[in-house]
Amino acid sequence: MYAYDFDAGDGSNKDLLGGKGAGLATMTQIGLPVPPGFTVSTDACRSYLADNNLDDEVWDEIAEAIGRLEQRTGRTFGAAKGTPLLLSVRSGAKFSMPGMMDTVLNLGLNDTVIEALEAWSGSAHFAWDAYRRFVQTYGKVVLGVSGEEFEKVLTELRDARGVTDDSKLTAEDLEKATRRFQGIVDKKGSAAVPTEPLEQLRAAVTAVFSSWGNPRAQTYRRLNDIPDDLGTACNVQLMVFGDLGDDSGTGVCFTRDPATGEKTPYGDYLPNAQGEDVVAGIRRTFTLDDLAERHPEQHQQLLDVMGILETHYTDMCDIEFTIEKEVLYILQTRVGKRTAQAAVRLVVEMAEEGLIDRDTGLLRVDPASLDQMLHPRIDESQAGEPLATGVNASPGAATGKVVFDADTAVEWVERGEAVVLVRWETTPDDIHGLNAAQGVLTSHGGRTSHAAVVARGMGKPAVTGAEDVIFGDDGKTANIAGTQIKEGEVITIDGTTGHIYAGALPLIDPEPSDELVKLLGWADEVRTLGVRGNADTGPDAAVARSWGAEGIGLARTEHMFMGDRLPIVQKIILEDPQADAALDELRQIQVSDFEQILEAMDGYPVIVRLLDPPLHEFLPTRWDLRNERDKAIESGEPTDEIDALAEVVMRFEESNPMLGLRGVRLGLLRPELYRVQVQAGLEAVRRRVEAGGNPKLELMIPLVSMLSELKQTAEMIEAEKAEAGLDTPVLVGTMIELPRAALVAAKIATIAEFFSFGTNDLTQTTFGFSRDDAEAKFLSDYLESGLLEKNPFETLDVEGVGRLIALAVKEGKAQRPDLEVGICGEHGGDPASIAFCHNAGLDYVSCSPPRVPIARLAAAQAALGFGADRSTI
Amino acid sequence: MYAYDFDAGDGSNKDLLGGKGAGLATMTQIGLPVPPGFTVSTDACRSYLADNNLDDEVWDEIAEAIGRLEQRTGRTFGAAKGTPLLLSVRSGAKFSMPGMMDTVLNLGLNDTVIEALEAWSGSAHFAWDAYRRFVQTYGKVVLGVSGEEFEKVLTELRDARGVTDDSKLTAEDLEKATRRFQGIVDKKGSAAVPTEPLEQLRAAVTAVFSSWGNPRAQTYRRLNDIPDDLGTACNVQLMVFGDLGDDSGTGVCFTRDPATGEKTPYGDYLPNAQGEDVVAGIRRTFTLDDLAERHPEQHQQLLDVMGILETHYTDMCDIEFTIEKEVLYILQTRVGKRTAQAAVRLVVEMAEEGLIDRDTGLLRVDPASLDQMLHPRIDESQAGEPLATGVNASPGAATGKVVFDADTAVEWVERGEAVVLVRWETTPDDIHGLNAAQGVLTSHGGRTSHAAVVARGMGKPAVTGAEDVIFGDDGKTANIAGTQIKEGEVITIDGTTGHIYAGALPLIDPEPSDELVKLLGWADEVRTLGVRGNADTGPDAAVARSWGAEGIGLARTEHMFMGDRLPIVQKIILEDPQADAALDELRQIQVSDFEQILEAMDGYPVIVRLLDPPLHEFLPTRWDLRNERDKAIESGEPTDEIDALAEVVMRFEESNPMLGLRGVRLGLLRPELYRVQVQAGLEAVRRRVEAGGNPKLELMIPLVSMLSELKQTAEMIEAEKAEAGLDTPVLVGTMIELPRAALVAAKIATIAEFFSFGTNDLTQTTFGFSRDDAEAKFLSDYLESGLLEKNPFETLDVEGVGRLIALAVKEGKAQRPDLEVGICGEHGGDPASIAFCHNAGLDYVSCSPPRVPIARLAAAQAALGFGADRSTI
Repeated sequence: MYAYDFDAGDGSNKDLLGGKGAGLATMTQIGLPVPPGFTVSTDACRSYLADNNLDDEVWDEIAEAIGRLEQRTGRTFGAAKGTPLLLSVRSGAKFSMPGMMDTVLNLGLNDTVIEALEAWSGSAHFAWDAYRRFVQTYGKVVLGVSGEEFEKVLTELRDARGVTDDSKLTAEDLEKATRRFQGIVDKKGSAAVPTEPLEQLRAAVTAVFSSWGNPRAQTYRRLNDIPDDLGTACNVQLMVFGDLGDDSGTGVCFTRDPATGEKTPYGDYLPNAQGEDVVAGIRRTFTLDDLAERHPEQHQQLLDVMGILETHYTDMCDIEFTIEKEVLYILQTRVGKRTAQAAVRLVVEMAEEGLIDRDTGLLRVDPASLDQMLHPRIDESQAGEPLATGVNASPGAATGKVVFDADTAVEWVERGEAVVLVRWETTPDDIHGLNAAQGVLTSHGGRTSHAAVVARGMGKPAVTGAEDVIFGDDGKTANIAGTQIKEGEVITIDGTTGHIYAGALPLIDPEPSDELVKLLGWADEVRTLGVRGNADTGPDAAVARSWGAEGIGLARTEHMFMGDRLPIVQKIILEDPQADAALDELRQIQVSDFEQILEAMDGYPVIVRLLDPPLHEFLPTRWDLRNERDKAIESGEPTDEIDALAEVVMRFEESNPMLGLRGVRLGLLRPELYRVQVQAGLEAVRRRVEAGGNPKLELMIPLVSMLSELKQTAEMIEAEKAEAGLDTPVLVGTMIELPRAALVAAKIATIAEFFSFGTNDLTQTTFGFSRDDAEAKFLSDYLESGLLEKNPFETLDVEGVGRLIALAVKEGKAQRPDLEVGICGEHGGDPASIAFCHNAGLDYVSCSPPRVPIARLAAAQAALGFGADRSTI
Repeated sequence: MYAYDFDAGDGSNKDLLGGKGAGLATMTQIGLPVPPGFTVSTDACRSYLADNNLDDEVWDEIAEAIGRLEQRTGRTFGAAKGTPLLLSVRSGAKFSMPGMMDTVLNLGLNDTVIEALEAWSGSAHFAWDAYRRFVQTYGKVVLGVSGEEFEKVLTELRDARGVTDDSKLTAEDLEKATRRFQGIVDKKGSAAVPTEPLEQLRAAVTAVFSSWGNPRAQTYRRLNDIPDDLGTACNVQLMVFGDLGDDSGTGVCFTRDPATGEKTPYGDYLPNAQGEDVVAGIRRTFTLDDLAERHPEQHQQLLDVMGILETHYTDMCDIEFTIEKEVLYILQTRVGKRTAQAAVRLVVEMAEEGLIDRDTGLLRVDPASLDQMLHPRIDESQAGEPLATGVNASPGAATGKVVFDADTAVEWVERGEAVVLVRWETTPDDIHGLNAAQGVLTSHGGRTSHAAVVARGMGKPAVTGAEDVIFGDDGKTANIAGTQIKEGEVITIDGTTGHIYAGALPLIDPEPSDELVKLLGWADEVRTLGVRGNADTGPDAAVARSWGAEGIGLARTEHMFMGDRLPIVQKIILEDPQADAALDELRQIQVSDFEQILEAMDGYPVIVRLLDPPLHEFLPTRWDLRNERDKAIESGEPTDEIDALAEVVMRFEESNPMLGLRGVRLGLLRPELYRVQVQAGLEAVRRRVEAGGNPKLELMIPLVSMLSELKQTAEMIEAEKAEAGLDTPVLVGTMIELPRAALVAAKIATIAEFFSFGTNDLTQTTFGFSRDDAEAKFLSDYLESGLLEKNPFETLDVEGVGRLIALAVKEGKAQRPDLEVGICGEHGGDPASIAFCHNAGLDYVSCSPPRVPIARLAAAQAALGFGADRSTI
């Protein structure tokens, strides 16, 4: 079976009916006023995609369903007399992909049906507007004519009539438009618009199915992790008309505010309009309050529907409605897209209302989305006057150079610029630009416009409908309330307030909302996996603590060798006569570095990693020196010192530095470097104890591949501990970041008191992918062509790297039951990878401080069993 | 118990008594004429080494043993009257370490005992010679005085007397020497020579135990894989004297010829001498035939002893003997060191004689030693007249620059030179120079001299006792039979014939001896592991076949892109307008490359690996271009072309090229490269079939880490196979050279029809050791300091890399039972690694053609269970 009437389909089966079809079935079956129709299933789509052919069986069922629809509505498809049956034909996949696929409205019109439509509606203007809309979308969607061709005609007609709005065109104008559209299609389309309605329908269904494969839909799926093999359903439904006059209208509403999560219905409404006019953001919309004034009865009815749907779905719903001559119709519902801020507030409030339980609430927030809430905001106290204010459509602040089109946005971002995309409105064709930009500013459209919906989905700031933004003719300038802004000039937008500022504004760290604090508290009660932060300084450690980190999983010490300290380090490398004094100085400085971190994390474990990078990172490059030398020769200066340095640089040069003299290898060959670090660590502990603190230092040795490396270094540390005579325990452990270390974990655990998986390096050697090269040279191609589904440097490769981790955890803990095991690579902040870590039996994950809340939530979800499918060992 | 009399110890317990002590116990107990004595066990040594202190318990047992020895011999230790008991005190570890540790002879002398000795022997000359020898070795060995100090005195005395031989000095001269030696010891030694014999003994035993730890012994152990914790035993034995007149003498003999393996006793003999005079090569020695003439009775007795010992040990023995006043004494025996050629002939002949069985014979030849037999020889037909001829002490040809001391040898070799070490004689202090040199030439000493024994052990050519070599005073020249040779000039020596030539001589490939062919035939009957060769050209493949390779495990194709073909390849890389034509040309050339290899290995599998290295290897470096550019600017030429090329070079530049865009990654991004290789391979197969051949081509894809990479490439190959319409099967498989490939082997085996472990790369990524850098930057330090026992690029790391291999074999074969699994890294020719491959269930190993015989023998040994201890999975 392929075609399911709305009153017959299974509303819980989104796989088969798609999200929209399932919603229509559900709403029909609970008695909401849904115009009748049927859903052609995803099975039909997949069968179509397999051979690019709509099976006869499918078509026969569609034709039968049309028969039933004629009976039910008492209308006739393609009728020259009586009430004509016009259809909307819309895509609807399992996961919402707003605007990505195709829709054909007003289908069923031709030169005879138009007369019946005019008679039925009593309005030539309405009838011809429907006809021109039909020819326009059919021409574009089914027959491949560029939309611009039609827009040009409309512009000419508006200009001739001296109006700015299509609704001000006369019936004659619209007839003229329709005819000229037909002419354009004849000339530029792949065929003429068929006059036979069934033929129109067949082509439209085919076009909807085909649109699953269009490039922008593919991009959207890739960005949103939607599998490519699902296919879309196609919903065929009786057209109802919001443009039959002032007693009609159309709108979109949410059961709660999708930007803030507040429990207030939110919506946009346009009188005398079709739905596409709302979403496109062409006209400034009205609010639900306006609707209440105009149509109090329908407004109340809509509020009732919202209540029913929220209770039914136990979630915030997004609803499309149309009022046709005072009659309310519900055209679509789905669980509404929301900002992270709204998602958090929603689930906390719904849990407190008793609509859902806490675990459901925890599972409903995408941990990765919290990132949006944790980005810096504009410091309003220092911001001054905004240039202008628009609709606060997606929260957060964005600063960047202004670009006026999507291609330029992508191009500039690829060369390393941050941009804000500024458009009159956005369309699905702008998706790549929205993805590239820091944020988006439009002069048209409300909170449900394309730009707003997409930006919220991407977690990017958006200000929409800012009418004070006037575009120049050259496509390279805009006037924002009197201030001229050229392409490339920097602006800042605040999607939380809708403000627009010139230049880059000072930002401040975000405060977590009360709801977020509450939700993370619930998460902490549920999770069993510890969460630590990666921080290299006292202040960073304090931030990690403030986000709830229960310790430091990785304090890198290399930055302590950089900056002002570089000349000291160079003396040591160059074995300068004053190297010993330099070492002393370095020790002193590090004592205070370590003290600050231990103080910020007092009472919690702090893992300090001994020096990891190769020495040459602390030296100039051969190229730098060659250029310096050329300059010296030019200016007649001596080159002896440069030459001497060049010799050292050459000595340290390596073909594959990632696999070279670094980490413990360097620590063993230049033992003085590790020794001063250990001494500094122990001294910091002594001072913290003296100050009444509770320091829990753990010393971590990087790049171990063999027990002997660890043993010799651990012996040095033990000797220093004995020398220092400290009572306070200081654990000694190792990174597991080379395949061999994982393979011999049982041996390594005879000495190591803790393991920390360095999954960046472990991924690098397990795959043989250089982190420095792979991305640019081939990984991006691999991802694009589908050879790789995910970037293994972002999401842990469970099959390969994960197998090594699971093995090392198991065998390490078998050897030493109290072995402390964690992860400190980038993956420690990635929700899918966190689920794996939970399942593999790790004790904690460690990530950058702003990702700590994400990790807390992801760890709770993992404890609730979520994500296990993404990360089976 | 610590001190075992020779007639009481267990002759089979070398661990406890050391090799020498075990031999003395065995010989005593089977009734051979061994001077009585006792062995202080290795337990005593280890106990000494633990705290640098000789336990009282040990010393008490030694003193008791001396009492028993006095009783048994009727002599008195330290007696002023009667027959004095003099002792030899010699080291003797489990494994023979000739000359590496210390020996003190004639112990028990002092100013009163000398009188009794003179009275007993009736010779003041003998007695004072014994005394000066004692003071000399005791001063050197126990008290740390440099040997040169004593030599200077002897030289002065010889000069004064006008003689060149110590034996020509008078009793007065020797008394004077003894007194002056005592003066030197008093001044430069750590103490005076004790007068109390027991005190002498205690210090000598201690010195022997200490000498286990001296640097040259450590080096020797490292070179010969002898564990550091065994310790040495110490043998204390009644001195018998070969220097009591012409009715006395001393010698060393082998039961068969240690250089050729011929079944003829071989030996060196010196009348009226002590043993050290033979080994030091100071005097030209006599042969066993000479001995037969001088002492026919003792000669026959010695032959009988040889027979008894060879039957007892069922192996060729090395025997030290002394004749004291017509009485034969056997001082030592051990299984004799031998050249590889001798080892092979010995075991084949002994097996045919029925002395041993074939399996024992197979196990007794060190596979690695076959290398010596398989090196090129001098082409005698083109060699011309040699400059001179010496003793053919260790076979094979060596060409190199002449150096006259060991330190220079090491230094020159480190900077990349090949050297021949030319010495008057060698001593244990020269061991590092012998190790570094291609071969050794001495002007003194026979086939049992230090140089000869050590060179044979190392498998290096040696010509000894070449008396026509006269050294210049400057230490930088020698005159070889009239031809002046300066340091740095090239000579060639032939250790098989003893010939010495000026300059570098043309060499020819070796022919395997009949015995080797026989032994390898036996090996083939026993082994279950296949052996293939790595070869990139038809001629190399033919050589591999001639050595018994059963196919090609790895034909690299990168050389096919080098040389004349480089400009063609560069056109392709640079995407030149003529790239297509270049690809065509490349295809044509490769067809003939592949055809030749398939022809040489007709009927056997040939694995061709598709292009592996990164493209930038086919381009000049950034440095080359910079220099070229500087030159162009200087000479006013345009730089456009250089700049354009530089841009491409920069584009291909990688931080870690080993982990970068190479192998299958390149094959996927530049599919045209792999496609022409596949087409060429298929065309070569077609032509071979047409020519009536039986080509078995297997196409191997390198650097696979994910199934998808293999899948896409295999699909391309399948498409090309379909296109070519070939019936002949062509397998498609992959290298397993990245940890991830091993970890997901089961998946990869769904497509791969064979695996070949690329253990070089697999070792690289498993350890995170860059092959290009690690050796120089830290691996040599690791090996020296004992952090690493073996270089994992030479001997497979069983624990880490081996675990991955074993896992991949098991899971790969579970997925595809007929999966063909082999190894093609350097390890394929390493005997210990071959044992691992056998145990891990591999089907074959593949190695460079000259290592094929080694692999055949090692595979047989593995099948016999040998080496399993070195390679447990």
